[in-house]
Formats: sequence, structure tokens, C-alpha cells
Amino acid sequence: MIPREILDKIDENRTRYVEELLGFLRIPSISTYSHHAADVRRAADWVLHHLKRIGFQAKICRTERHPVVLAHSLVHPDAPTLLIYGHYDVQPPEPLEEWISPPFSPSIRDGCVYARGASDDKGQLFTYLKAMEAVLAVAGNLPINVKLLVEGEEEIGSPSLGRFLVEHRDELQCDAIAISDSSQFGQGIPAITYALRGLCYLQVDLQGPRFDLHSGSFGGLVANPVQVLAEILAGLKTLDGRVAIPGFYDDVVDLDQQEREMMDALKLDEDALKEYLGVDELTGEPGYSPFERKTARPTLDVNGIWGGFSGEGAKTIIPARAGAKVSMRLVPNQKPEKINRLFSDFVHSMTPRGIKLEITELHGATPVLIQRDHAVMKAASRAIEIGFGRTPVHVREGISIPVVNLFEELLEPESILMLGWGSPDDGTHSPNERFHLDDFHRGIRAVAALLYEMKGA
Amino acid sequence: MIPREILDKIDENRTRYVEELLGFLRIPSISTYSHHAADVRRAADWVLHHLKRIGFQAKICRTERHPVVLAHSLVHPDAPTLLIYGHYDVQPPEPLEEWISPPFSPSIRDGCVYARGASDDKGQLFTYLKAMEAVLAVAGNLPINVKLLVEGEEEIGSPSLGRFLVEHRDELQCDAIAISDSSQFGQGIPAITYALRGLCYLQVDLQGPRFDLHSGSFGGLVANPVQVLAEILAGLKTLDGRVAIPGFYDDVVDLDQQEREMMDALKLDEDALKEYLGVDELTGEPGYSPFERKTARPTLDVNGIWGGFSGEGAKTIIPARAGAKVSMRLVPNQKPEKINRLFSDFVHSMTPRGIKLEITELHGATPVLIQRDHAVMKAASRAIEIGFGRTPVHVREGISIPVVNLFEELLEPESILMLGWGSPDDGTHSPNERFHLDDFHRGIRAVAALLYEMKGA
Repeated sequence: MIPREILDKIDENRTRYVEELLGFLRIPSISTYSHHAADVRRAADWVLHHLKRIGFQAKICRTERHPVVLAHSLVHPDAPTLLIYGHYDVQPPEPLEEWISPPFSPSIRDGCVYARGASDDKGQLFTYLKAMEAVLAVAGNLPINVKLLVEGEEEIGSPSLGRFLVEHRDELQCDAIAISDSSQFGQGIPAITYALRGLCYLQVDLQGPRFDLHSGSFGGLVANPVQVLAEILAGLKTLDGRVAIPGFYDDVVDLDQQEREMMDALKLDEDALKEYLGVDELTGEPGYSPFERKTARPTLDVNGIWGGFSGEGAKTIIPARAGAKVSMRLVPNQKPEKINRLFSDFVHSMTPRGIKLEITELHGATPVLIQRDHAVMKAASRAIEIGFGRTPVHVREGISIPVVNLFEELLEPESILMLGWGSPDDGTHSPNERFHLDDFHRGIRAVAALLYEMKGA
Repeated sequence: MIPREILDKIDENRTRYVEELLGFLRIPSISTYSHHAADVRRAADWVLHHLKRIGFQAKICRTERHPVVLAHSLVHPDAPTLLIYGHYDVQPPEPLEEWISPPFSPSIRDGCVYARGASDDKGQLFTYLKAMEAVLAVAGNLPINVKLLVEGEEEIGSPSLGRFLVEHRDELQCDAIAISDSSQFGQGIPAITYALRGLCYLQVDLQGPRFDLHSGSFGGLVANPVQVLAEILAGLKTLDGRVAIPGFYDDVVDLDQQEREMMDALKLDEDALKEYLGVDELTGEPGYSPFERKTARPTLDVNGIWGGFSGEGAKTIIPARAGAKVSMRLVPNQKPEKINRLFSDFVHSMTPRGIKLEITELHGATPVLIQRDHAVMKAASRAIEIGFGRTPVHVREGISIPVVNLFEELLEPESILMLGWGSPDDGTHSPNERFHLDDFHRGIRAVAALLYEMKGA
């Protein structure tokens, strides 16, 4: 249990923590713009020096593009080890004219700090630094071993991270990994994310005749690749919204009763969602609630389609080619390799003579399911209760988070803690990104508590 | 029966006719280029003066863009009246570098004249002028009433013609119309086209959510407009190639036995066609030969499709919108208005909740079927036998010809003679367009004979 003095110290220093965060937010560390490379580097140095100042061993590691900051504070080989992941780079701020205050001149209004990176991820990452500063200042040592990996390429897809993890695997060995790069379930309703969906993303290309044909002269003679593509796509799903690929659901682990009750209790506001999306009906796989469908059930969506003439007016052709991007969201224990194969076999079986088919696998991710009753998860739950004054809910997310897949695959920790301190309306990636100062403060308290809860776990 | 002297005169003047044609072909009357407007006008004047010289009453009629040449030579109110249609404008010649001799410097090689417009339509039109010149020179009068309408906007879609026909309806009254703006069935196998397919061309637009959605966060919640579009398009046809719109075939007049035998005798070279198209199989509606399918049976083709992401790589969105262009080729007695309605009703019935549907009618044409046993058709057949030394075949064409629809609708002649003197390999609209001088000569003989055959018909 965390000593009272540490929480008091965090409460006392609340204003100073915010001021320091503003300094971090002033650095325009936009990783995708090469003309900001020096700023990105400056942000890495800022993190490095801050970590050293609070008592960590820290270093800068070069990659092909933006550096990684690696740091540690180790107490004992037998103590549990927590690896903290964060990123110091940010999204571009455009469109600039929509910002009420400039993106890199942080402004405090209505209990929030407004700046690019306030929530994603500088503000959330900084909760870890301030929590550990307070623990070290009061107790002299951390209660467990802590390692930090802070990268500068998250917003461009973490292209260097996989290789980096392989090369630093020993140095990064840990029992659990903590990531705070998302949000609470709702503002003031903290959440632990215990599952992510996986992904198969493929491109289907069809070729009919060698060139576009006059539909008057040739209509009735050849298979039309757009028509065949439509038949294939229609065949991939049933009209009531299930995926029709044979074997697709074979490895799906059903939701357990407790999960369904948990999800049911969270009450998705369907009317507000319909209003937001501009649709008159939420549709999907029968037998599951919208909340279950968007987080815990696999889906198939066409992401794009093309072929033939799409200009103004009429052009009477039979197109030579057509194509589509199709992706599937996977849930445990579906395997991308197997789903890719089932997809490919099924699409081939639906392709008639007269059409050449090519399928390209573009992207994949394995679904993630973290054991909800693991001791580390329970420790995180207690820590959040201390930090936020409220027991967190446990949620699944419909998205994939590539870095989580990399950690699972390359570091194989016992548990991964996805602890979002932000709010769903923080506007990450949008103009006027913000971070509630209350969330910042509660996050710091929760992190400090987590170190002590993990010690006993 | 045409007097021998006239055919002799045509044979004697063969070389002069070609030389005169070269003068017509030298005028770059490209109707789509506004900087060639003076050339287009020059070609109209050339036709005007030529008609006057051979003994016609002729005048230039202004339209909003390029003028129409109207002319007549009337013998008696009770004699049959033939209206001859042609156009003096030409397609652009580009790409210029692919021409062996310049497009507007006519060159004679291998028994052909090479120039833009040689076959389409200056050369074919000129057969009528030379035939009538020979008849008038020998006989003093034409055997029937003849009117000519020569426009300068055919290659840009005849935008002024409809209005012109309405305004000159009385002046253009006729029993039959002759058009030579296409080709024989094969070089040396003359043909009379007695049927054209019609057209319905529509655009289908679907709207799902208000904006593109993250397929991870929202996959499983909303109807995907591309998926729905695919289901609609797949629903429009059966897998074996029939159109599945209820009522679509109701008004189709079946091919009669004689027609099927005629088509069967024409022997489409399927292997050569597959090779040309680059497909391993010709496919289409069961129960009909490829030749029947491409000319005498209705079809449905998607001409283009779009929606969502079509760039390189992967973008995980549920698209907000999707659309397609769909056209149907109609055969007698299908009506575009009715088919549009059946299409629209069926597509609406397949559109689920959560998707907004919009259907736009872009273009239409009524199918054309000319009575094969009409006296004028028989007269044309005998005339072609005189001109070409071979009985013509009777064929249907899969395309629509908008001017034929305008004539049917606005002038209501008893018959329309589509008598192509060109060859299928003349390269109209392509570089190195040509016209066989033998075809030019035989065409002149056939036209002269037609005037006499129509007199007795």
C-alpha cells in the first residue's frame, strides 16, 4: 500500500507538475514532418534529462529515424519489473485555423490544458515521470524495478520499434508493461482495456478483358470484373450481417457470461451514437448488442472499391479491371494467417472463368486478450481506485494497437496494462486537443499507487 | 432498274471521284476544337457548293455551333422521298505521331485512301453526291425525291440535331432515311443493319454514416455502403448471367427462327475474339450464341464503381459513401422509361435501413427494329447487290446510334436504311483511318441503284 506521504506530496506539487508539463508541450515534436526532426530530437532530450533529474539511468538510442529513450531504476533482481511505454512525438496540428489557442503554446482553460500532445501522449506519459519523482523523493527508492521505453515514431506507425525490441530484448525483460495512450471509458469513469481486436487487411484485384470495352459492341460477351467483384463481396457476408467465409468463426472464443453482464452494465447510448453517425439504425451481427459487436465480435468491412468510369455523366464501358480493399477485425483466438487463407480460398472459389484474380495481404494484427484475473490486473484496479476514487471498468476495444502486438510477440510479458488516463472527448489527433488537469493529477496518483500494489502482487 | 449508262458513267469517272474526295478530306473540320470552327464552316460550304454544282437546291442553316447543310432535288409530289443523312465533321486526329501520312494530307496506298474522315463520314457521304451527280448527268432528273441533311456536330454528339429536326420537320418529311456512317459486316460482305439496342444508363449513390469511420472503433455497428452496393449489384444479375430485375424481360421480342439461322450462318470467330479480348472464356446469358448475346439480347453492365479508400496500402475505414454507374442495353420492345422504373423499384427494395439511396437517370435510348421485309429494305438489298455484286447480310448491332433515335422519334419515316460502306478495319476514330477505294466505288454504284429500286418499290 502506498504511503500517505507520497500521495500528499503529489497533491502538494500539483501546480508545479502542470507547469513542467507545459514546457514539454511547447516542443513541436511532429514526427511525420522531416523539417521538425530537430524538435523531435529536442523532445527526446527533454525526456532524457527529466528522467536523469528524478533519479533514473537513462540513455538515447538511435534508430533509422527518431530516437528511443531507454531508462531504468532497478531495486532488486527478485522484485517485479514494470516496463512503461510512452511516446514523445505528436500528430501534425493542422488545420491550424481551427485552434482557439496555438497548438504549441499551451493554454489552460476550464480545468484543461490545451495543446497538441496534451493527452496523446505527452500528458499521459508525464504522469509516470511525476509519480516516480514523488516516490523517489519521499521513499528514496521505487518499490519495484521500473524500465521506461519512450519512442518518437508512434504517430508514424512505430516503424523502428519491432527491430528495436528484438535488439534490446534482454534489456527490456519485464513482468508487465504499462501503456497510458488511450482514454477512460467516460470522463471520470476509469477503465482497464483487456482486449483488442486483430486485423486482416487484403486487396482483391480482378482483371476481365485486356482493356475497357464498348458496352454496346461487347455487352453480353464477357464477364464484367466489377460485377464479379460485387458478387464476391456480397458472398462474403450474409444479408443479416454475419461473415459468410466458411470456418471464419471456428476459433472465436465466446464472450463469457460475466463479460456480457459487464458490457451490458456500461450502457452504450444508442440514440446519441445514431445521431453522431447520422444513421437511422445500428446494424450488425444478430444476437449481440452494439457494444459487443463493436468490440468483442469479428467483422468484415470493405474499406474501398474502384473500377471503370467514375466521372461526370455516362461512359458506356465494360471495365477491364476492378479492385477492393477488404479488412476483417479479428477476436481471440482467430489467427490472421488462417483467416487470410480462408478468405483467399473462398474468394478463389467464387471467381468464375473469364476473370483473373489476385489477392494481396496488406496488413495484419493478432487479437489481444489479457487475463482479467491476473494479479497485475488486480493491482492496477486497486491503484486506479486509489488514484481516481473509483473502481475501473474492464473493457474491450474494437481497434488494434500495433505496439501491443509487438510487445506480446517480442517481449512476452505476463500482462499488459492499457490504462488510459485521457477522456474520450480529449480530441486527440484533432484541433484543440486537451487533457483534463484532474485526470492528469489522478493519473499521477494512480501510477504511484500502482508501483506499491504491484510490489505486493 | 438503273439504266446501264449510269453505272458505266460511274465506272468511267472513278478516278475523278477519288480526286474530288481528296479535296474534301483536306479540310480539317474537327468539330470539337473551337479553333477549327472556320475549317468546319469551310467543309459545310464545300458540301453546299458541291450540291449546288450537281443540281441540288441547297442552303446553310445555322445552329448554336456548327451549321447544317440542307438540300433537295424533288421530281414529283407522288414519288417516294428519300432523306439522306451524313456529317461533314471529323474526330480529332491525335495522336499525330502514329499517322503514317498526315491526317489532312490524304494519301493513297494499297487501294485505300488514308485520311481523317476518309470512312467516317466524308467518304461514305460523298458516295451519295457522286451517285446523284451521275444520275442527273445521264437522266436529267432523279427517279425519286431526294433530300439531304448534312450536319457538322456528329462527332460531338449532335447536340443541335433534335431541335433542328423539330424546327424543320415539314421540310424533312420523307418515306425513308439512308445513313452510311458504319461498315459492312466484313470487307466485301455488305450488310444492312436492321436493329440497334437501346440504353438505360443510371447512377446509384449510397450514403451510410455521415463521414468515413474507423473500422476498428465502429466495425460491427453500421451498414457499410460499399457492402450494400455490392449486394445490390450482385442482386441485379443471376450468377449464370441473366438480368434478375423482375419484369426486365417481359417486353423482349424473341428472335425469330429466320433471324437465328441468319446469325448462325454469319459465324462469329470465337477464338479470334477471345484472343483479341484477352479472356479465356466468352460468358453471358445461357441459351444464346455470343453473336446473339452481343446484338440481340438485353444486357446489364456496371460501367464504374467507387467508394472509400483506393490508394496504396491500408486505410482502415468504413466508407461514408459509395456509388456505381450501371447501364442496360435494351432490345425491342423494351422501353427505357419502364426499365428505369423496374430498376429503381428493385434497387430500392434491396436497400436496407441505415443506408440512403439516390438513383439518377443519366442517359437513355429506345431500341430500334426496322421491318426487314419492308419494300424499301428489299430495294436497298437489290441495290447493294448491283453495287457490290453480292447480296447483303442483315445484321443487328449491339450499340445505340442517337441520330437514328432522333429520326425515329421526330420524323417517323417508314424505314431507316443503315447501309455501311466502310470496312470494320477502317480505323474510324483511330490513327491511319482509311477507306477502301473499291468500297467507295461500289458504294456510289449502290446509291445510284437504290434511287431506281426505290422508285419501283
